[in-house]
Amino acid sequence: MVGLGPGAAAWRTPEVDQLLRRATDLVGYQTYLDMVEPGPPGQRRHPSDNRQEAGRAAAALDLAAGGRSVAVVSSGDPGVFAMAAAVMEQLARADAPPAWADVEVTVAPGITAAQAAAARAGAPLGHDFAVVSLSDNLKPWPVVERRLEAAAGADFVLALYNPVSRHRPWQLRRALEIVGRHRSGATPVVVGRDVGRPAEDVRVVGLAELDVSLVDMRTVLVIGSTTTTVVRRPGRAAQVYTPRSYPADRGSPSDAG
Amino acid sequence: MVGLGPGAAAWRTPEVDQLLRRATDLVGYQTYLDMVEPGPPGQRRHPSDNRQEAGRAAAALDLAAGGRSVAVVSSGDPGVFAMAAAVMEQLARADAPPAWADVEVTVAPGITAAQAAAARAGAPLGHDFAVVSLSDNLKPWPVVERRLEAAAGADFVLALYNPVSRHRPWQLRRALEIVGRHRSGATPVVVGRDVGRPAEDVRVVGLAELDVSLVDMRTVLVIGSTTTTVVRRPGRAAQVYTPRSYPADRGSPSDAG
Repeated sequence: MVGLGPGAAAWRTPEVDQLLRRATDLVGYQTYLDMVEPGPPGQRRHPSDNRQEAGRAAAALDLAAGGRSVAVVSSGDPGVFAMAAAVMEQLARADAPPAWADVEVTVAPGITAAQAAAARAGAPLGHDFAVVSLSDNLKPWPVVERRLEAAAGADFVLALYNPVSRHRPWQLRRALEIVGRHRSGATPVVVGRDVGRPAEDVRVVGLAELDVSLVDMRTVLVIGSTTTTVVRRPGRAAQVYTPRSYPADRGSPSDAG
Repeated sequence: MVGLGPGAAAWRTPEVDQLLRRATDLVGYQTYLDMVEPGPPGQRRHPSDNRQEAGRAAAALDLAAGGRSVAVVSSGDPGVFAMAAAVMEQLARADAPPAWADVEVTVAPGITAAQAAAARAGAPLGHDFAVVSLSDNLKPWPVVERRLEAAAGADFVLALYNPVSRHRPWQLRRALEIVGRHRSGATPVVVGRDVGRPAEDVRVVGLAELDVSLVDMRTVLVIGSTTTTVVRRPGRAAQVYTPRSYPADRGSPSDAG
């Protein structure tokens, strides 16, 4: 399982490059396979729809069990909301084909979207943070709410993946309501869209002014804690950071907003 | 601010390699500078002690304000518990030297320790997770406890940085007590030491059997949620993953342990 990183070749690790060149077969969502340059003669590509994760994982294991060297391609880090867990889930199935027992499964990490957006904006992940997917395709929405409430109440910086989709129009608004109980409207939010790709757009806005209609499924959000600070210098884009130190007199971060 | 990743050259991004080659000056903790191969003739190195972060950041900004092209070197991701926030803190100082106003400050992300340890062990970060530093050098210990309690109670996977040090012998034990209120003793924990370096050692152990005396400051811990699963196959090291799906009937994760 290899991670391309957010898109830019300069953010793809040499390990991943080498695994992609050596693979006899590339398995992945069509959009991600399109980000991989042509491989050696004979290398086969098995593109699929983004929602066929279990089937794609099983197909990759079948190919590997048959002696092929398979790269399962994710964007970002395959270990973070991506294909690595999907493949491991297949391996753990009670009815897993016996032929899979001998397949060697390794993970090559990549820069994930929150790191890329954070880097472009400064250092908002410089202190304790929580990473939450707002997708309720595979987990009940109350679990998402409980996690947002817990993380916001304990003053974590929050990185939000899958903030919206065609089938999830209201969840982000609800998430921002929950976070807004624990943060002032001036809390900096990094809105990173297509980071590391040609259409990259990274902005720093206040929590109260975040326009949810501008957020889509290719966006990652990083919402500051109560200590996250904006640095403004004349003639430059605003940058943000979360200090390494935390004020000793802030006894109850959940009231700090 | 550049991130070397966990150590292995195969995990260092091409962006970071290029910035290191182009820099006129490398600033950083001696141990990290030692991980960088010799640069072009004339490139200067400014090694420092690991605890002089503010001074190191200010020195880097002074060099850059004087026209030098400076790479501030961190291991892992400079944006995660590392030098990027330290440099931004200096920039944000009320008494920042006027000469710093024109310094361009950019961040080149890297693979961070939790990603590396997770990749070696499977996909424990496959679902929502929280990243917490146990260091109380710069934040009050009660803040750490509150965050651990919140994240464990909401059933996040937990990645723990700086789990111990010579000056912090008891904090990890206390952290494990807090997490243990919300997790069974069988919860898988990834113990990653020196990941990506020659002495790499990655183990998967149960929460109850974790030997804190084997954990040091070069270790990162990833503690599973209640859904994190161990995959055992004959003749192979145990692997772990956190499923992408969450059971709909698990109403109160904090009682699930």
